Amino acid sequence: MKAGTISLEHGAGGEVMQALIGEIILKNLSSKSAGSVGLESLDDGSTVRLEAFGPNSELVLTTDSHVITPAFFPDTNIGRLAAAGTINDLTVMGAKPLALTCAVIVPEGFPLKDFEVIIKTLGDTAAEAGVPVITGDTKTVEKSALDSIILNTAGLGITDCPVRDSGLSPGNKILVTGTIGDHGISLMAHREGFDFDTDLVSDSAPLWKLIEPLLKLRTPEGKPVITAMKDPTRGGLANALNEMAAKSGVTVLLEEDRIPYKPAVTAACEMLGLDPLEVANEGKAVIGVKAGFEEEVLSILRQHPYGRDAALIGEVTSENKGEVLLRNRFGGMRYVDVPAGDPIPRVC
Amino acid sequence: MKAGTISLEHGAGGEVMQALIGEIILKNLSSKSAGSVGLESLDDGSTVRLEAFGPNSELVLTTDSHVITPAFFPDTNIGRLAAAGTINDLTVMGAKPLALTCAVIVPEGFPLKDFEVIIKTLGDTAAEAGVPVITGDTKTVEKSALDSIILNTAGLGITDCPVRDSGLSPGNKILVTGTIGDHGISLMAHREGFDFDTDLVSDSAPLWKLIEPLLKLRTPEGKPVITAMKDPTRGGLANALNEMAAKSGVTVLLEEDRIPYKPAVTAACEMLGLDPLEVANEGKAVIGVKAGFEEEVLSILRQHPYGRDAALIGEVTSENKGEVLLRNRFGGMRYVDVPAGDPIPRVC
Repeated sequence: MKAGTISLEHGAGGEVMQALIGEIILKNLSSKSAGSVGLESLDDGSTVRLEAFGPNSELVLTTDSHVITPAFFPDTNIGRLAAAGTINDLTVMGAKPLALTCAVIVPEGFPLKDFEVIIKTLGDTAAEAGVPVITGDTKTVEKSALDSIILNTAGLGITDCPVRDSGLSPGNKILVTGTIGDHGISLMAHREGFDFDTDLVSDSAPLWKLIEPLLKLRTPEGKPVITAMKDPTRGGLANALNEMAAKSGVTVLLEEDRIPYKPAVTAACEMLGLDPLEVANEGKAVIGVKAGFEEEVLSILRQHPYGRDAALIGEVTSENKGEVLLRNRFGGMRYVDVPAGDPIPRVC
Repeated sequence: MKAGTISLEHGAGGEVMQALIGEIILKNLSSKSAGSVGLESLDDGSTVRLEAFGPNSELVLTTDSHVITPAFFPDTNIGRLAAAGTINDLTVMGAKPLALTCAVIVPEGFPLKDFEVIIKTLGDTAAEAGVPVITGDTKTVEKSALDSIILNTAGLGITDCPVRDSGLSPGNKILVTGTIGDHGISLMAHREGFDFDTDLVSDSAPLWKLIEPLLKLRTPEGKPVITAMKDPTRGGLANALNEMAAKSGVTVLLEEDRIPYKPAVTAACEMLGLDPLEVANEGKAVIGVKAGFEEEVLSILRQHPYGRDAALIGEVTSENKGEVLLRNRFGGMRYVDVPAGDPIPRVC
């Protein structure tokens, strides 16, 4: 075993693993507890108290594995991606995040220092959204078996009114919370060593505090103003909107010149022949809003740092059910197809 | 892409991934729903309804990644291991399992047929314990990046009386639900091609139905009969009991000739110089029981196929706090140390 790196015994369930957990994991994850058994108990799981929840509430459960390479990318690392990704899945379901799990798989030889930075980043990101990381797991594998660290996070949330991705109706407005394509393009540029003469970085961010105020908005008839929501990760906006349109049985009509892009993203996509609509975002939500409320929603979003570039990008019609259409500035229309997959591999 | 195998696009968030999910994942996992949004919605998460739960209940959250190689081993595969492992973590916390997540990471080129068998096995194992798999995630990586399929499962359970691993008191009896070392030794034998002239197989099994009746047992004073519980996975009984003894501030005294072993396990351990107490089990629980109730508990356990070989293996004393001692048939005593780690790598 090389000093300062992960050894197989760090994940073997014995004394060495206990030391790793004590020295690095407990030190860097919030000790805030959600119930009578917390992370620091290192029991077989941890608990979340139920007393404050109403009888009509529903729990929301979600999970994601993160296989991004490299583990460190501009301006953060896989720890932020993992915590934010799971918090965002709960958020776009309209659920207040209650607790996260964190399961780590590390190849032998991985620097302990990097491991600690990743765990600390994960803990800080969860803390930013007010969510405790309450339970976890550590596994190690041989150096030859795995090329980079893998994180899995699962999230538990609660809502009394789930937001579905199937909730769009004709007339709804489509909003995004900020610029599109930053994560995927910044990752690719970093990985391939491209220099776009820019400081484009990943948008990875936990969106709960940005979205929370929107969930309380009601129409005069008492209906939720937010009709549908999704985070456009793998496969980007193209994939997210196609899913929403198909499940809702409606058409989404996007206005190309309203979609917010950073100039570096546009430039990179033109150069490399990529469609920015297919590229992953890790700190954005696409939101269906009842007509007449779009300005109120935009103004709330723009008050938060993660929503500064929020924009109205289109609307919902009933013309071609299940389709996503893009109108360019000259009035020309094209279909936005479901991508076969995200054009950038191991993006999250 | 080779026909009949996993390609990178199977995990890339687009059309190809949707097809995989539709054809293999939804077909093989129980469609039983726990709330208004189920797995079949393929939304960003799924929900669990709260109405039936009392105000003193606590939710239990747990997670485990599974990196076992090979993915198929006697008599089952990583799918059973993953579902059972998470169900057992909830079970030993005294929690009724409500829902599981399943996140899969598959290397390119992995046979689709094997993938389907694994998902089906996971679904069947969860169904055996009455637990729906409600949400999941699929990621693919290059063939060179990962040597075998990885599953992560998280589990949500509920209890009004968590069972801790720190609950042992002097006088308690220590029980195990069956033979020790089967999983680790059968895996090692299979992996190394050893032939012990036996049909030793993994004990991987979901223990909820075995343990559920014990959780209701109360002393005449109304106290739970089960004082502490743990599943002796990585690092085996040695690791589990040392954790329980240390956290409870007591000594565990084991009687060597009462610990149930299959003859093949004893033979293999003697031949290879392994301590069967340090070897992983995947379908066993070690249980602290209030004195006077051990026969009742044993008789309940032995009525279930997974508890047929249940045995009383020791008791709790207050002599050397935090230690585990083993008395052999001649009265000689030795310490059972915390293993540095499980002697068999990638055992779960």
